[in-house]
Amino acid sequence: MRDFSRDTRWLSINTATIRKSRGVDLPLPDIIEACVRRGIRAISPWRDQVHAAGLATISQLVRTHGMELSGYCRGGMFPATDAAGLKAARDDNRRAIDEAAELRAPCVVLVVGGLPGALQGRAAHKDIALARSQVRDGIAEMLEYAKQAKMPLAIEPLHPMYAADRACVNTLEQALDLCDALDPGRTGALGVAVDVYHTWWDPKLEAQIARAGRERLLAFHVCDWLTPTTDLLNDRGMMGDGVIDIPRIRGWVEAQGFAGYSEVEIFSTGNWWQRPHEETLDTCIARHQSVV
Amino acid sequence: MRDFSRDTRWLSINTATIRKSRGVDLPLPDIIEACVRRGIRAISPWRDQVHAAGLATISQLVRTHGMELSGYCRGGMFPATDAAGLKAARDDNRRAIDEAAELRAPCVVLVVGGLPGALQGRAAHKDIALARSQVRDGIAEMLEYAKQAKMPLAIEPLHPMYAADRACVNTLEQALDLCDALDPGRTGALGVAVDVYHTWWDPKLEAQIARAGRERLLAFHVCDWLTPTTDLLNDRGMMGDGVIDIPRIRGWVEAQGFAGYSEVEIFSTGNWWQRPHEETLDTCIARHQSVV
Repeated sequence: MRDFSRDTRWLSINTATIRKSRGVDLPLPDIIEACVRRGIRAISPWRDQVHAAGLATISQLVRTHGMELSGYCRGGMFPATDAAGLKAARDDNRRAIDEAAELRAPCVVLVVGGLPGALQGRAAHKDIALARSQVRDGIAEMLEYAKQAKMPLAIEPLHPMYAADRACVNTLEQALDLCDALDPGRTGALGVAVDVYHTWWDPKLEAQIARAGRERLLAFHVCDWLTPTTDLLNDRGMMGDGVIDIPRIRGWVEAQGFAGYSEVEIFSTGNWWQRPHEETLDTCIARHQSVV
Repeated sequence: MRDFSRDTRWLSINTATIRKSRGVDLPLPDIIEACVRRGIRAISPWRDQVHAAGLATISQLVRTHGMELSGYCRGGMFPATDAAGLKAARDDNRRAIDEAAELRAPCVVLVVGGLPGALQGRAAHKDIALARSQVRDGIAEMLEYAKQAKMPLAIEPLHPMYAADRACVNTLEQALDLCDALDPGRTGALGVAVDVYHTWWDPKLEAQIARAGRERLLAFHVCDWLTPTTDLLNDRGMMGDGVIDIPRIRGWVEAQGFAGYSEVEIFSTGNWWQRPHEETLDTCIARHQSVV
């Protein structure tokens, strides 16, 4: 397993982690500058942050600083109630691929969506099998476009508590079943993003990481599971503050040959987003070196 | 599939559902009386409620009214950090079996426990594999005692969001793997409790219910998954208010020959526990007849 204790070579910051500083929105250029000042070499930006600053601006900033991306957040949200909705998702996902290519991202991370309308508290139906079918079809179609752009797609299985409103792909096994169905040749065009927050509980995690293998392991995300967790979405913990045995999972991933970034992705309305982003970033670095 | 639309024959009330009325604790005898007045024939009581009223009192009340139990809540919580902790769990689980026998329960429901101390926010370690090993050993030992008492044990896989602090058995597949390991003969001594709240998201649910079969399906619990869900523990929805396709899952269970109660189990600090329990019960009956 790689030694992370001495530097930040394999630390990436998902920009959601410091999207707020002292409770106030922090623009993406400021996030990038703060990372650069600390020798952090990679980020994974969110599309809304990129759009707010301008794609050309961010692309230029990233190149100027010689930064890499560990992923681009995010594509997906495939299910819809009608043809117009499905087409809107398709078009938006194509734009995500184009943006990711401009930013030289290694992959677009897919949060596949759940029951249409559930995120707004008004689910259009209760047929999760239908949503899963639309996800499969949506990825298949997106994959054609992604292959032409040479942009890999990383399906991120989300924790089952998000099955209704954010992603109806909820285990690594399920994500890999999709990969095997849509990319049986293991071409590298389709794989998974393994986030310890979403997957740590899974009794089949070790076996499914081995099944994924190097070709399917496109991204590795870290944070921690707090006890108690006070909010389903925005109470993720800093690495070391929770119950996830992160080094064990990283060991499984690296045993398959994964040699990419450990991307820190923390949503934390009540804690980290209330602090100065400098403190959050410094803590990310310290914990990356000591407990990841 | 059985027709629930005309009566309450197969409705059971988990007594947690009306453990509070207008925010105030409702004693178990009052809960029983309220159920009896509405023609509800079964309950699943919690041990703390039984202890508060006295086992003999509750046993007498249940017999007087000719009520049945659909389960007894609950045994489990096996993991511990030392031999004394493991022994305390064992002894308490034996008492749970004795109480269940006195109440003529059809099974003791097992919430198996997670990382020791996590429920108090101070997990003693991060080794969920160790916790799962202790769970296996604990069920094996408890099963010997349960067999002598002729009291079946129902492993309840809990939603993965409870893996750290309440139960490290988180899928029906995992629960059935335990059943197959500890009761390969499918003797009826060991099975599962399928709660739609914990399992609805699982892409393997239908297949695993079929795998369970009649011998392993010891209990069926219903409520609903709300969007948004505002609390990990105590924001369960009334059937029909969320996104779970309950009749579909009940159909899968009954296709295996399950012919027992649909047990309503709702923890709801902010909503149902604030209402008069009469209203909650009447709503349970109406929804049992219309959306379960």
